[in-house]
Amino acid sequence: MTSTQLTIGEIGERETIARIMAVAPSSRNGDDAAVLGQPAPNSRTVVTTDLLVEGRHFRQDWSTPEEIGQRAILQNFADIEAMGARPVAAVLGLSAPESTPVDTIEGIARGVETQVAFYNAELVGGDVTGGELLTLSVTAIGSLGGSAAPLTLDRARPGQQVVASGCIGYSAAGLALLSRFGRDGVPKELTPLVDGFVNPSLMPGRGVIARATGATCMTDNSDGLVVDLGTIAARSNVTIDVESAAIAPDELQLRAADLLDVDPWTWILGGGEDHTLLATTAHAVPSGFRRIGRVIKASAHGVLLDGAQPSTTSGWVSF
Amino acid sequence: MTSTQLTIGEIGERETIARIMAVAPSSRNGDDAAVLGQPAPNSRTVVTTDLLVEGRHFRQDWSTPEEIGQRAILQNFADIEAMGARPVAAVLGLSAPESTPVDTIEGIARGVETQVAFYNAELVGGDVTGGELLTLSVTAIGSLGGSAAPLTLDRARPGQQVVASGCIGYSAAGLALLSRFGRDGVPKELTPLVDGFVNPSLMPGRGVIARATGATCMTDNSDGLVVDLGTIAARSNVTIDVESAAIAPDELQLRAADLLDVDPWTWILGGGEDHTLLATTAHAVPSGFRRIGRVIKASAHGVLLDGAQPSTTSGWVSF
Repeated sequence: MTSTQLTIGEIGERETIARIMAVAPSSRNGDDAAVLGQPAPNSRTVVTTDLLVEGRHFRQDWSTPEEIGQRAILQNFADIEAMGARPVAAVLGLSAPESTPVDTIEGIARGVETQVAFYNAELVGGDVTGGELLTLSVTAIGSLGGSAAPLTLDRARPGQQVVASGCIGYSAAGLALLSRFGRDGVPKELTPLVDGFVNPSLMPGRGVIARATGATCMTDNSDGLVVDLGTIAARSNVTIDVESAAIAPDELQLRAADLLDVDPWTWILGGGEDHTLLATTAHAVPSGFRRIGRVIKASAHGVLLDGAQPSTTSGWVSF
Repeated sequence: MTSTQLTIGEIGERETIARIMAVAPSSRNGDDAAVLGQPAPNSRTVVTTDLLVEGRHFRQDWSTPEEIGQRAILQNFADIEAMGARPVAAVLGLSAPESTPVDTIEGIARGVETQVAFYNAELVGGDVTGGELLTLSVTAIGSLGGSAAPLTLDRARPGQQVVASGCIGYSAAGLALLSRFGRDGVPKELTPLVDGFVNPSLMPGRGVIARATGATCMTDNSDGLVVDLGTIAARSNVTIDVESAAIAPDELQLRAADLLDVDPWTWILGGGEDHTLLATTAHAVPSGFRRIGRVIKASAHGVLLDGAQPSTTSGWVSF
């Protein structure tokens, strides 16, 4: 038996942890708890957590272990960025059947390490246990510098413009393609849409930049554009009018929609899981963002598309 | 159908989250991420995470939902205390089958709230998703005040005494009783042992006190006394000699051992899961601790019992 066929049940809990720590080394890891570095003066700690369960959030025939690890970190770091904060650390809980190949766990750890390194953050601790379904639990820790308010859901104000950084509706399009064709069957030119699902990306520091340039409210597009903007509308007691021209399906999405014979607007309005940052600001569009609409009323009438009710208003839920 | 029979599949993800937040309210919860309070000057953030999986870490016929929630927080807060830090916040990830009663989830949330409130900490966020096995993922955030070093595993020194705060071998005794008799069949007078398993307790602040009074090294008894002290011995390159008289089975453990016809020393030396704090100090025994041995050599020969090899050297692993 070669080492590639070894399972975590065969090497045991301690050796599995050792393998993860070898892939994602950190001097802060390995004690009862991790002590983070001395924080910048006048900064606050920000924390968020997400569970990813096999069959619900990812499938191993669609995503590589590396992609699963990268996505798990990305979606947590997006929540940190969405407060206007900077991700500094993550911890990883892994529950997996004893029959899971060591290679799979090492691959996930590599993906985690790749993503935390991209953000100049660190995997500082974790836990490994048996279980029925491969499950990842990530908690991300961020640092919110300065005394300015964090970018909360309740601070959108009439007159502001709505801005977005990143693709909208790519993840849902990718999921639809994978569901129909499987990973190997998706036409090559549509790979960016598949990547939107298996390995979404977010340029580090966009949340910090938006906060520094006067944005007041931010979230990430995780449950669907209309749902997430609707949450802002409800919490801030405003109405948000999205401009269809700014979020219209691009060439790739149109080709995928044509291939699958579906309306690409369902992906854009209802898809979610893109982890695009959505913000409101009374100032210039922050670097890396684009305008997608405006905040129009001091009373919560939800989300409009070009002034009318959008065709899709529901989004992604796990059950 | 009464509300007590409702399942989380019936009320859905959003309402399940709303129910948890109603039981454990926090003004920091409900945004993309939680912003913690301004930290004390010159303090550092400490973080740890643990997964608890049904059937491996708890059983619903042995533990109430409240106890499952309390234990999940306790074992994470013990890791924060074991650094000499103070727990300030926790996040909770919950994966559960759609058939899980809402009451079960609310019970877990009540247990979580009870324990975080006992520590003057706060549940600041979480995530809920479907899954096959009820799984709790807790991440605890602590605050390490001042510039003194944290209580790490590698700072035991020859000449120090070894001290402990809390019961040793109660959790394993409780587990053995539950395995034989079930929750309802355990003789009433042995309840404290069962509590050691289903709801271990740890007086808040012991870790901070130990650090303030000169302890240098600390861990919590989670994998088993010999294993955990052995980790300290290996990391610190010392030998630890435990005094049997200080950890000998008490009246309750002797009665339980008699009833089950087993050697109670296997619980004490190998049991783990007690979350007793174990520390080394060259100073007086800190308040709330008792002496259980000494650090004797500047080379790692592991753990001795009265100068000899202990009868049990293995401990608890999840797979």
